[in-house]
Amino acid sequence: MKSYIKNQINEFKEKNQNRGRLLVSCPDQPGIVSTISKFLYSHQANIIESSQYSTNPEGGTFFIRIEFECPNLKEKAAEMELQFAELAKEFNMEWNLTHVYNVKKVAIFVSKELHCLLELLWEWQSGDLMADIALVISNHVEAKEAVEALNIPFYHIPANKDIREQVEKEQLQLVETYKIDLIILARYMQILTPTFVSANPNKIINIHHSFLPAFIGARPYERAYDRGVKLIGATSHYVTNDLDEGPIIEQDISRVDHRANVDSLKKIGRSVERSVLARAVKWHLEDRILVHDNKTIVF
Amino acid sequence: MKSYIKNQINEFKEKNQNRGRLLVSCPDQPGIVSTISKFLYSHQANIIESSQYSTNPEGGTFFIRIEFECPNLKEKAAEMELQFAELAKEFNMEWNLTHVYNVKKVAIFVSKELHCLLELLWEWQSGDLMADIALVISNHVEAKEAVEALNIPFYHIPANKDIREQVEKEQLQLVETYKIDLIILARYMQILTPTFVSANPNKIINIHHSFLPAFIGARPYERAYDRGVKLIGATSHYVTNDLDEGPIIEQDISRVDHRANVDSLKKIGRSVERSVLARAVKWHLEDRILVHDNKTIVF
Amino acid sequence: MKSYIKNQINEFKEKNQNRGRLLVSCPDQPGIVSTISKFLYSHQANIIESSQYSTNPEGGTFFIRIEFECPNLKEKAAEMELQFAELAKEFNMEWNLTHVYNVKKVAIFVSKELHCLLELLWEWQSGDLMADIALVISNHVEAKEAVEALNIPFYHIPANKDIREQVEKEQLQLVETYKIDLIILARYMQILTPTFVSANPNKIINIHHSFLPAFIGARPYERAYDRGVKLIGATSHYVTNDLDEGPIIEQDISRVDHRANVDSLKKIGRSVERSVLARAVKWHLEDRILVHDNKTIVF
Amino acid sequence: MKSYIKNQINEFKEKNQNRGRLLVSCPDQPGIVSTISKFLYSHQANIIESSQYSTNPEGGTFFIRIEFECPNLKEKAAEMELQFAELAKEFNMEWNLTHVYNVKKVAIFVSKELHCLLELLWEWQSGDLMADIALVISNHVEAKEAVEALNIPFYHIPANKDIREQVEKEQLQLVETYKIDLIILARYMQILTPTFVSANPNKIINIHHSFLPAFIGARPYERAYDRGVKLIGATSHYVTNDLDEGPIIEQDISRVDHRANVDSLKKIGRSVERSVLARAVKWHLEDRILVHDNKTIVF
Repeated sequence: MKSYIKNQINEFKEKNQNRGRLLVSCPDQPGIVSTISKFLYSHQANIIESSQYSTNPEGGTFFIRIEFECPNLKEKAAEMELQFAELAKEFNMEWNLTHVYNVKKVAIFVSKELHCLLELLWEWQSGDLMADIALVISNHVEAKEAVEALNIPFYHIPANKDIREQVEKEQLQLVETYKIDLIILARYMQILTPTFVSANPNKIINIHHSFLPAFIGARPYERAYDRGVKLIGATSHYVTNDLDEGPIIEQDISRVDHRANVDSLKKIGRSVERSVLARAVKWHLEDRILVHDNKTIVF
Repeated sequence: MKSYIKNQINEFKEKNQNRGRLLVSCPDQPGIVSTISKFLYSHQANIIESSQYSTNPEGGTFFIRIEFECPNLKEKAAEMELQFAELAKEFNMEWNLTHVYNVKKVAIFVSKELHCLLELLWEWQSGDLMADIALVISNHVEAKEAVEALNIPFYHIPANKDIREQVEKEQLQLVETYKIDLIILARYMQILTPTFVSANPNKIINIHHSFLPAFIGARPYERAYDRGVKLIGATSHYVTNDLDEGPIIEQDISRVDHRANVDSLKKIGRSVERSVLARAVKWHLEDRILVHDNKTIVF
Repeated sequence: MKSYIKNQINEFKEKNQNRGRLLVSCPDQPGIVSTISKFLYSHQANIIESSQYSTNPEGGTFFIRIEFECPNLKEKAAEMELQFAELAKEFNMEWNLTHVYNVKKVAIFVSKELHCLLELLWEWQSGDLMADIALVISNHVEAKEAVEALNIPFYHIPANKDIREQVEKEQLQLVETYKIDLIILARYMQILTPTFVSANPNKIINIHHSFLPAFIGARPYERAYDRGVKLIGATSHYVTNDLDEGPIIEQDISRVDHRANVDSLKKIGRSVERSVLARAVKWHLEDRILVHDNKTIVF
Repeated sequence: MKSYIKNQINEFKEKNQNRGRLLVSCPDQPGIVSTISKFLYSHQANIIESSQYSTNPEGGTFFIRIEFECPNLKEKAAEMELQFAELAKEFNMEWNLTHVYNVKKVAIFVSKELHCLLELLWEWQSGDLMADIALVISNHVEAKEAVEALNIPFYHIPANKDIREQVEKEQLQLVETYKIDLIILARYMQILTPTFVSANPNKIINIHHSFLPAFIGARPYERAYDRGVKLIGATSHYVTNDLDEGPIIEQDISRVDHRANVDSLKKIGRSVERSVLARAVKWHLEDRILVHDNKTIVF
């Protein structure tokens, strides 16, 4: 990547050497917050921001996200993880302790339509989206120039349903080689197999160009036009094996009127898609999202 | 109705003695605007506001709404209609010439949930919704007090699917007696028969408590909750014989988050429903809506 | 008040017998969350929802809102307060422990324009706004009928700047007699004296009919019209002695276009004002608002 | 410019050979629409879309925008202009007849912050913004690479208030040489002199990074932060000699909360600025904007 972007990332890492985030979900019961905060305090960690939510005080599920500053976090992180694992067992927790210093590695998949990719690249180079964009994979070549202009590796892997298996093998290989934390489908118009999806649970974010569950599947703008809707929308969600049925992260809409034909809907829709995907990606990068029962809690 | 509301209506009529509106749709061809505006000018009418739209310059459909001031409109209206009918034949027009002085007569149908009814009554008494609310019909009694407090006739007609035919006969009788121009289903939870609907084409406005076409049918908030959507919506539309499939007039949404349970969604949704229905009703009362191909043009 | 509203309130109290809320702000330092959560746990309280925020990890201010279920809260509340006071001293906390069972007593002040009052009454009677609306005070009589129809005491206290002192004395007397927790200025067009304001710090919510700080002061819609803005807004804020300068709680806007004259702006604006005020009031009633440095933290 | 963009423009020109737009404002009186539409019909022009508005039926101002298809427009345009000029005299019209084929020439001025420029370039290359971006002028070099990558001439003209006169002379020279129709200040942080502004009336569009008239002048995000607003906005307007006081074309806002510091406000604001400026520019390019009394009518 370009050196000024590298500098931005390095500055961010410098600034966040001691910044950690803890995400927890578990069966609700009294004493969880007390236990977690005592644990953090025992490591001299100062809680900067925390959000908590319970589905139901009795027999429900408890969720918390804590962002904290902890002196010498880099040195202590491994030990903290070990200790927290003990405590987590007691409360039957699913949990994740992340070190903000470890900027997440991202792969972007794209087809011919570039607006979502370009939005991400743009926010990225302006420092508004903190990630290490490690590579872009496309079944077309349209994106090549814009991607390589930023010194990001671009992989052209033609795809269609007949060679899907082979294609995904190559893709998974790259995902592994680059140690990717997050895959973004930025209008990548191919369906992924269960093998690919299950290898990356809650790690693939897709943008669907409609207000789900309206217009699930193909050609949503055409169908929105036919129905005569007055708002068009976009939905970003984690990918599961049920098409367009994964946990919704973010949605937004834009107003349209009778003058808009299908092309206008697409143009207007592009700007909704761009911002909806970018917001979802940022929240994921900031460890703000917990998935529960095919829904997201966004803290 | 209460005397201060009567006064508001009378003032409005006084002010709009010479105000007319012309709505036209027809196959597109050159010369339509010229012909219509010449016609209006020949009656000394001054065009105040006009909006026009064509689906396609070649072989498409032409739509126009014109609001005009015409001296002595009251006296001339009948003659103008006759003359315009001639001209309309030539261009194969569907058209409607309304005299704003003739405030529209409205019937509101409601069940137990009163928020949409109350919004309409409220905007009405504050002068923000210009109509003659002639009666309210309900299959329950919850609305009785609020309606009668404004001296509006309230008809309690219990309904269920076994007696639907008899119920609709009574309702249609009232609609006829009161010479109703517009029926508003303000969360009236009964399905209307094809007989009732076809007797009132594009004259029945319904509010559906979801962002159509998502969550067509019953229990939309429950289903929105289950799907984990991040926005909930409401849709006002003309009623046709296909459930929730009529031409959409207006839609809007409100943002929700993971903390909202079904009850919260309903509460938040109420305020969206209220404003979406009120806007649709106002546009209808102002003759702003043309229906074409199961879609609306809203000028 | 009407009996069905009383029933709603009683049901709510029943349901929230053991529900408490703790609001704290203090200089930031490690260990605060740990201390608070340990305290709650020691009383068998289960944290249902918590939100925390720090202006700055080093030398900043710490804010937290915790909602919890605590067995036998009613009996224990006094003792808990005493104990927490000790702990609060240590950390130099400003704090507030509320028992949700104690539904807040509210006074609404209104002039001639009733839309904001009616919105509040409406959400209230439909159970969407949980408060004990103890009285309405107005310098006009327009609101009398709607208020008394709900069996709420209505006090007509004519006001103008010459008799302001006497008027406020009466008003303060009523506020005291009714043990009012929150005063809502629902388009009450009189300026309050420093005496009145300082007697009710962060307990008076006003709705200003513009997007502050645009159009501070009188006639905001007229000035918005003159400036040709494309959006009009409304702002709810706590009242301080600087006109329209108090901490902003909530703002929203509505789109307008060139066709809107001053009257249209007012009509459109009314519905923004209504919802902005209602949201601010609900957040206050739910103890979601902390004030710091003339700003609000809304959890 | 790049060849694929040239191709897009050429396709557009091909498609719009016979497409014209007529903008008129004049003192209101009966017969204007009739006269104009008769004129168009006499040239076999078919009206595709028209919007009309009068400030006041009696003694007000009349505005109309008509988009039409006219066979052989290219050949007839000059003659039509001559004829319309006659007719315009009669009605005291200000008017503008544009041929859509003549794609507008645009100059973009920018400083260091590139988000608004990049948005425009982006929508432009994806075919969503139909213009001939002839050059970019900047007092800094940050934009150079992105601009030249699209084969657009980039002029680096350092500026400060001491050399303003000389700088503007160079800029005006370029504007003249390139026959510029529209100047876009895409976060160009220099104040223009009355000489420059009066040479380009209603031809300079600026983006101001606040919801005007709130936070006129410098450092709007800092001041928004200090005031604790809950929404931040952006405003695009034509430039006049009164700073930030020109006719507003478009405004929009984004919601923010207590967690946003000045930097976050800036980041969130960027995306509002981008879309608000892009919309204003598109409306201008489509001849949708009429200016009257320091306000805009946007059809």
